[in-house]
Amino acid sequence: MSFKTRFTEAFGIEYPIVQGGMQWVGKAELVAAVANAGALGLITALTLPTPEALVKEIARTREMTDKSFGVNLTILPTITPPPYAEYRQAIIECGIKIVETAGHKPQEHVDHFKQHGIKVIHKCTAVRHALSAERMGVDAISIDGFECAGHPGDDDVPGLVLIPVTANKIKVPILASGGFGDGRGLVAALALGADGINMGTRFCATKEAPIHEAFKQQMIKNDERQTDLIFRTLHNTARVMRNVVSQKVVAIERQGGATFDDVRELVAGKRGANAMANGDVDGGIWTAGMIQGLIEDIPTVKELIDRIIDDARSIINARLAAMSRG
Amino acid sequence: MSFKTRFTEAFGIEYPIVQGGMQWVGKAELVAAVANAGALGLITALTLPTPEALVKEIARTREMTDKSFGVNLTILPTITPPPYAEYRQAIIECGIKIVETAGHKPQEHVDHFKQHGIKVIHKCTAVRHALSAERMGVDAISIDGFECAGHPGDDDVPGLVLIPVTANKIKVPILASGGFGDGRGLVAALALGADGINMGTRFCATKEAPIHEAFKQQMIKNDERQTDLIFRTLHNTARVMRNVVSQKVVAIERQGGATFDDVRELVAGKRGANAMANGDVDGGIWTAGMIQGLIEDIPTVKELIDRIIDDARSIINARLAAMSRG
Repeated sequence: MSFKTRFTEAFGIEYPIVQGGMQWVGKAELVAAVANAGALGLITALTLPTPEALVKEIARTREMTDKSFGVNLTILPTITPPPYAEYRQAIIECGIKIVETAGHKPQEHVDHFKQHGIKVIHKCTAVRHALSAERMGVDAISIDGFECAGHPGDDDVPGLVLIPVTANKIKVPILASGGFGDGRGLVAALALGADGINMGTRFCATKEAPIHEAFKQQMIKNDERQTDLIFRTLHNTARVMRNVVSQKVVAIERQGGATFDDVRELVAGKRGANAMANGDVDGGIWTAGMIQGLIEDIPTVKELIDRIIDDARSIINARLAAMSRG
Repeated sequence: MSFKTRFTEAFGIEYPIVQGGMQWVGKAELVAAVANAGALGLITALTLPTPEALVKEIARTREMTDKSFGVNLTILPTITPPPYAEYRQAIIECGIKIVETAGHKPQEHVDHFKQHGIKVIHKCTAVRHALSAERMGVDAISIDGFECAGHPGDDDVPGLVLIPVTANKIKVPILASGGFGDGRGLVAALALGADGINMGTRFCATKEAPIHEAFKQQMIKNDERQTDLIFRTLHNTARVMRNVVSQKVVAIERQGGATFDDVRELVAGKRGANAMANGDVDGGIWTAGMIQGLIEDIPTVKELIDRIIDDARSIINARLAAMSRG
């Protein structure tokens, strides 16, 4: 039985749950599992080294699922940017029908996607950016609260306030992002005015996520306080899993600000990539959100999604209905 | 028609809404209005200059309502503490049946209140403190998220995560506090595992709140970003309404930390008290939470509470029920 919201209707999916763009994680195995379980999975374009590799990853995903899935394209301001227009063209030529954009100045990309009949979800961290994206013609907004892994922005407004404020001002369907991982969170988001939830960290702690088991076990061990906000002094705030490296960055930043050079040695390059492959939790900087405090197992994606939907139905039709009857 | 939760049952109130302790604001007019509207109002003990004045304020409240109400007693570590034991004795002798404690080392107070058959709600900002209070024998926990006005602690965990984490570990009824002001928030809190909500800032923006109209209008003007976290460098973090004074404190703290002497001149003393009476919004430091972003009017307390309950019922029985039917 489906779970119907404005988002599921507009995007043609069964459940109002999205597996958001995640560097290194949003690949065929996870995306296909999410699609097969009735939710929306997104391949993270820049996880593939070239547009040609993205085309192959899309084909590989299609071998694993007949259901619809999408692609995330994150536009970051860098000195030597990836060939965004070529990635975009690969997405269009592959016949992908749903794209999540994130990052700076998406207008050109949104225009191209819309011209090809692609539905666009734009992910952002503030209501003023959501309004701007809505004016660009996007089909849905994914609004990212202070709780989220990755880049929460600098306003530090959590979902409890950010979601209803967004719902007051935005007309297109809204995905709530940051701090979600179970049926309780899904119902809370829908009550606050969202039409679905986006999950990142929680999907990393599933059997299908292409991540070393050591990281998954660390997410179970960590409580809700085991994250750090880093790079705020660089105006590029990121919420990451707390570990030896993140704590070193925090210490540098406390001493009156950091430069990219200060932290590059600690966080970048082959050491981190090797550490990821080897399951060395203290060998780099790893994105993870506060929802770690609610992760207690490593289910399959289907088990996770079924549990969220079952719990949400039970909360609505038993717990909340009984309360409201007085 | 009542709205029934474990909290309303245990504390004998009609609706799962609490008007939390608020310095200068938690006085007879507001508390009686909240009680008459079916929610739980709390007189803030230390707003009264002496235990004798508290006894008079309780009597004054009883002239305005036949319903039950409570008293907040906040224990802060200060060099010259107020006579807490005398305030406590006044509360007991007045026959008050519900007390909210907050602050450091409440054990002695909890013991006395419990010996006199008084139900105790303990307000705290972290799960480990909630567990400690539960072991002391309190009857409910009020858990305060990062969004809240006043003292959010230093863990910076918002309600979306803090409430379900608390619900996983605490057996007594839970009030969710911080970021609540409407029916959407009430349903979200109940979905996340709470048994009711505590509101502070939203009750300040009601007709009965004993606050100069200029502050109420400022809360309508402010959006969700118009708060500052101050005194973090003093290990006494407070979320306050953003204004000229709070921004000066933030600037001092950015320059490598502040001392109490640095900020005392900016925030304390008669200037602030006069400013409050005169409605000078930039004349002191004023507590206010992020929920300002959702405050759009100054209703009576009864209008506010009726609206929250009506909206909550509608969200549960129309919006969420329809979604879950698929």
